[in-house]
Amino acid sequence: MKKEIEPTNAMYPLPVVLVTSGDGTNDNIITIAWTTNICRQIPCVGIVINGQKYSLDLINKHEEFAVNIPGRDKLREVDICGGKHGDKVDKFKLAGFTKEKAKVIKAALIKECPINIECRLEDTYSMETSHLLIGKVVNIHVDEKVLDGEGKIDFGKLNPVVYAQKTYFSLGESIAKRGFGLK
Amino acid sequence: MKKEIEPTNAMYPLPVVLVTSGDGTNDNIITIAWTTNICRQIPCVGIVINGQKYSLDLINKHEEFAVNIPGRDKLREVDICGGKHGDKVDKFKLAGFTKEKAKVIKAALIKECPINIECRLEDTYSMETSHLLIGKVVNIHVDEKVLDGEGKIDFGKLNPVVYAQKTYFSLGESIAKRGFGLK
Repeated sequence: MKKEIEPTNAMYPLPVVLVTSGDGTNDNIITIAWTTNICRQIPCVGIVINGQKYSLDLINKHEEFAVNIPGRDKLREVDICGGKHGDKVDKFKLAGFTKEKAKVIKAALIKECPINIECRLEDTYSMETSHLLIGKVVNIHVDEKVLDGEGKIDFGKLNPVVYAQKTYFSLGESIAKRGFGLK
Repeated sequence: MKKEIEPTNAMYPLPVVLVTSGDGTNDNIITIAWTTNICRQIPCVGIVINGQKYSLDLINKHEEFAVNIPGRDKLREVDICGGKHGDKVDKFKLAGFTKEKAKVIKAALIKECPINIECRLEDTYSMETSHLLIGKVVNIHVDEKVLDGEGKIDFGKLNPVVYAQKTYFSLGESIAKRGFGLK
């Protein structure tokens, strides 16, 4: 039996990522789950920042950001970065994260995250006070431990965190490869 | 030790959803993982369709679509809907899905999916041949079995499928509530 509920943002679960911005000296971290891939032909990703956040100012100023994907072992730090304001505290220090130098952009990467995606701000799509920042992927760093035999990211090895309705979940087991139903 | 890999769409894992479009008689289903929430103030979701797909034509024609979120038990059907072309076959018949009437939009919902999000096409953001379709959520149907005590969706009860790098994964266990690290 189905019930009708109020229209809400029910597209979940989504990946929990840490977005860094800044100039390598003054950097901020923001925790975001409203993310996706945007364009296949020009590899682009999108992140949604809601409201007038410090990270939004930094990303607009430098026109770049990095998406750092943490493993489950850093969930407490992830949660802390999502609940504090970067204009008041240094979240790298607060969470105990180490800055890692990016290759293409100036903003610091998070060393403790096994995946770091360097992005140049390509465009912004705004609706009310929600801003979808579209970043062109210009470089990716991946810890060897989360690469498969072909040199591609194995998200099963990463053990990422996904988010839905104010709750953090782990990633479960690999069930099947795309196309298994067509055989 | 980190390695650099080629820029690619590495934002994962993302939810596996079935998007329906049409007029209630001639309807199509497309499997999509590139999805997110777009706006908080006006509840909007986004789905990315890559290339000139039949679903894209139907959504543009009727200016509406539905996001149907399946449980893991329907993964074979989900995979089939992602691998066939709707202009050649009736995917409802092919996958054995039942049409359920929507309340606000004309397109059919999928009865076997515990969550159905009715959307009006609000806007489209295109880059190359990738199209981010932004839908304003106008109604949501949820199976009582996946609601929590407060009448909100419990994604743990849904047992959804998430997708990363050509692989389907289950959702793991609930780890913590947002804000646990701040206490």
